[in-house]
Amino acid sequence: MTSTMTPNLQLTPDGRLRHLLTLDGLPKRILTEVLDTAQSFVSVGERDVKKVPLLRGKAVFNVFFENSTRTRTTFEIAAKRLSADVVNLNVNASSQSKGETLLDTVSNLSAMLADMFVVRHSAAGAAHLIAHHVAPHIHVINAGDGRSAHPTQGLLDMFTIRHYKGDFHNLRVAIVGDVLHSRVARSQIHALTTLGCPEVRVIAPRTLLPRDVSGMGVHVFNRLEEGLKDVDVVMMLRLQNERMQGARLPSAGEYYKHWGLTPEKLKYARPDAIVMHPGPMNRGVEIDSAVADGGQSVILPQVTYGIAVRMAVMSLVAGANP
Amino acid sequence: MTSTMTPNLQLTPDGRLRHLLTLDGLPKRILTEVLDTAQSFVSVGERDVKKVPLLRGKAVFNVFFENSTRTRTTFEIAAKRLSADVVNLNVNASSQSKGETLLDTVSNLSAMLADMFVVRHSAAGAAHLIAHHVAPHIHVINAGDGRSAHPTQGLLDMFTIRHYKGDFHNLRVAIVGDVLHSRVARSQIHALTTLGCPEVRVIAPRTLLPRDVSGMGVHVFNRLEEGLKDVDVVMMLRLQNERMQGARLPSAGEYYKHWGLTPEKLKYARPDAIVMHPGPMNRGVEIDSAVADGGQSVILPQVTYGIAVRMAVMSLVAGANP
Amino acid sequence: MTSTMTPNLQLTPDGRLRHLLTLDGLPKRILTEVLDTAQSFVSVGERDVKKVPLLRGKAVFNVFFENSTRTRTTFEIAAKRLSADVVNLNVNASSQSKGETLLDTVSNLSAMLADMFVVRHSAAGAAHLIAHHVAPHIHVINAGDGRSAHPTQGLLDMFTIRHYKGDFHNLRVAIVGDVLHSRVARSQIHALTTLGCPEVRVIAPRTLLPRDVSGMGVHVFNRLEEGLKDVDVVMMLRLQNERMQGARLPSAGEYYKHWGLTPEKLKYARPDAIVMHPGPMNRGVEIDSAVADGGQSVILPQVTYGIAVRMAVMSLVAGANP
Repeated sequence: MTSTMTPNLQLTPDGRLRHLLTLDGLPKRILTEVLDTAQSFVSVGERDVKKVPLLRGKAVFNVFFENSTRTRTTFEIAAKRLSADVVNLNVNASSQSKGETLLDTVSNLSAMLADMFVVRHSAAGAAHLIAHHVAPHIHVINAGDGRSAHPTQGLLDMFTIRHYKGDFHNLRVAIVGDVLHSRVARSQIHALTTLGCPEVRVIAPRTLLPRDVSGMGVHVFNRLEEGLKDVDVVMMLRLQNERMQGARLPSAGEYYKHWGLTPEKLKYARPDAIVMHPGPMNRGVEIDSAVADGGQSVILPQVTYGIAVRMAVMSLVAGANP
Repeated sequence: MTSTMTPNLQLTPDGRLRHLLTLDGLPKRILTEVLDTAQSFVSVGERDVKKVPLLRGKAVFNVFFENSTRTRTTFEIAAKRLSADVVNLNVNASSQSKGETLLDTVSNLSAMLADMFVVRHSAAGAAHLIAHHVAPHIHVINAGDGRSAHPTQGLLDMFTIRHYKGDFHNLRVAIVGDVLHSRVARSQIHALTTLGCPEVRVIAPRTLLPRDVSGMGVHVFNRLEEGLKDVDVVMMLRLQNERMQGARLPSAGEYYKHWGLTPEKLKYARPDAIVMHPGPMNRGVEIDSAVADGGQSVILPQVTYGIAVRMAVMSLVAGANP
Repeated sequence: MTSTMTPNLQLTPDGRLRHLLTLDGLPKRILTEVLDTAQSFVSVGERDVKKVPLLRGKAVFNVFFENSTRTRTTFEIAAKRLSADVVNLNVNASSQSKGETLLDTVSNLSAMLADMFVVRHSAAGAAHLIAHHVAPHIHVINAGDGRSAHPTQGLLDMFTIRHYKGDFHNLRVAIVGDVLHSRVARSQIHALTTLGCPEVRVIAPRTLLPRDVSGMGVHVFNRLEEGLKDVDVVMMLRLQNERMQGARLPSAGEYYKHWGLTPEKLKYARPDAIVMHPGPMNRGVEIDSAVADGGQSVILPQVTYGIAVRMAVMSLVAGANP
């Protein structure tokens, strides 16, 4: 569906990764390169001295226009493991309140000789806009923009699946829950399809499905039990309580009754199915603690692999191969 | 009263310090090891390059569920002097507001390959709870939990006393003020007793004494002049204005009149008595500026020794002996 | 006007820079030394590894009593390029709310073995007060205090002018806008005069001129077109919207009409005139985007040179010559 011939803001003219803005449009070759590079970094986290000098002297700016301690921390840790100098900026509190535009903020930070921006913004397309305007030597990584994309989360999900299942070619993967408000689901669907997964399912109440879901090349299910049948991978989504205005949903208790992943419901999946969740979990809402902490859960390994994946993305865009 | 035979969450099976949660239950051997190790770090602070590579490549997470710039800074400085990578997290503002539990937060941070957590929380027992759940290679240091414990403050107080007085065996030590709301006083009493101090006094208005004070093995005084008589060390406590709900106290002016440490009242102590305070001070409430800035005050040296003591605790729990 | 003989808190007895508090009173020799040192650091920013070990093991505390992410970031980047350990403190949120005084806060931070304080405060004289009280080995850099001074901004402006114009001796320089509320304008006037600039103009509406402007040795103009005539350098000031209480000004639109720097108005200046602005800009108020982003604008290079200038100031006060 995508090709290295397509002009792509994310790639250099010779086809290497320059920015990571969305998984959409990224060729299989690049996705696989990230996963392979991340594999080589997993062992760094197990060493006594967890650092490699690949980004020594480089300045990585975590520019967060929206607060997310958790995501910021994973990037900060990844950058420090690569020996970069990390500067954290919560921009909402400062320049923006003085009326400076997004692009002025970014121009100024660029002029401070930044090498890389990790950008989190509530508006879709913010990272793209920044990538369009930065100087050629600066790299932009999207750490989440509105409902649109959160590509490193998508990549760490792929890394986790490959780690536990070896290959994508015989997998049945189910994505469960609030697809409508999720910045993760779209990235997941694109990546799974590109990497060769033959069957991607979306399981959600009708009110939490995006209108264009039928064009995404997925199978849609409106009952959890039915959708989970014989799947190899269950990717839970976080119920975005704080995003929902009005009443698309009944109470959290009602949601749990029909859509919460309990040990009973998980039995519909294959016995060796793995359960994933991007965190933070709403225990007792979209997932039962017995599943979250159970033997099929790979939720904490996802976090660990997320560091290696972010190290891989940072070193690849910077052209600093391990 | 305590023994290395007692099973203790803070110690490894072979009796080394694994976590620092409270001074309660720590054997004299460990307390002395911390003080001796800190002594070796005091000189690092006086060097031109104030760093040693003992924690190079280790990730220290300052996880503050309650804001305390001052305490966070001392741990940050100590960790950086040991060449660790430091990540600061104010958790209240982020995950907790998304409904994530304390243990989920900690599990996630652990999965980011943390080596050490420095934890500050308003609830007693939070650091213990975390220490119970972390993987064996992760170390937890309590940076204050509610009224319960603030063990590095207790240790730096002991370091300061030993520095100025040489030994604990002939000392008369007075702890003055808001014992009821202090997270420091209990640690101090335990440490002083364990290190062999023969006489510990508590001097406080009745309304600021804990109910169980009689079981603490201290002498209680309800008049400052009387309690200070012939003491070698005066340990002032901060009046926890912000914690007091209701009216346990008259006005700050009234408190100062009876309980404020003035040069006149200090004369009841031995002429070579030292005056300590954990900071921040309420000048003109529990302490007079003439005392705080006077020749018997060792309040600023306490801060300096606090860095060396925190370096000692961090390197000892990590098994990285200098 | 100033002399190395004058006792000056900023200089050591043998005339070297000890603190940087204000450009006022700094001899030409020191200004030139900063600019020359900064010149040697410009190339560091262009290297692959952007670090020099001049401040390795030194602790630089960014103590911000008033929020300014942008200024804090430039100092943080500069200190990290010099290999210092940087600790960021937003003090308003913590100690100050506990009633600690400014000097107690600083005494405590000093006792943590700080080597340098970068201070931002809303009150004029705060950095001076701190410099008066710190131990002899600690250096203080003023990062802005009220309307009074922001000396590193003044220095980076001088660096930028010298870079583009080579010399100050034949220049006509105009400072335009809200001189009354600007912490930058006074520094600029002093520095320009000291470095030998023969003609400094101030162009502002009467309501935005300080009362003592006539004593500053500048030419005052009340019409933009007239003041810009044949100048070599146009230094725009930010309109301090958030500082203006009451109505010294008509609407932003009215201000723009008379005082906004448009391409048409810029034509009154020399054709090779450069346009500067300390940022953040109010586009469409004091400056038109066509000028801000145009060929005569050196606004982004100012930011880049600001890093080199701050590196120069930090290394000079620390006595660590490159």
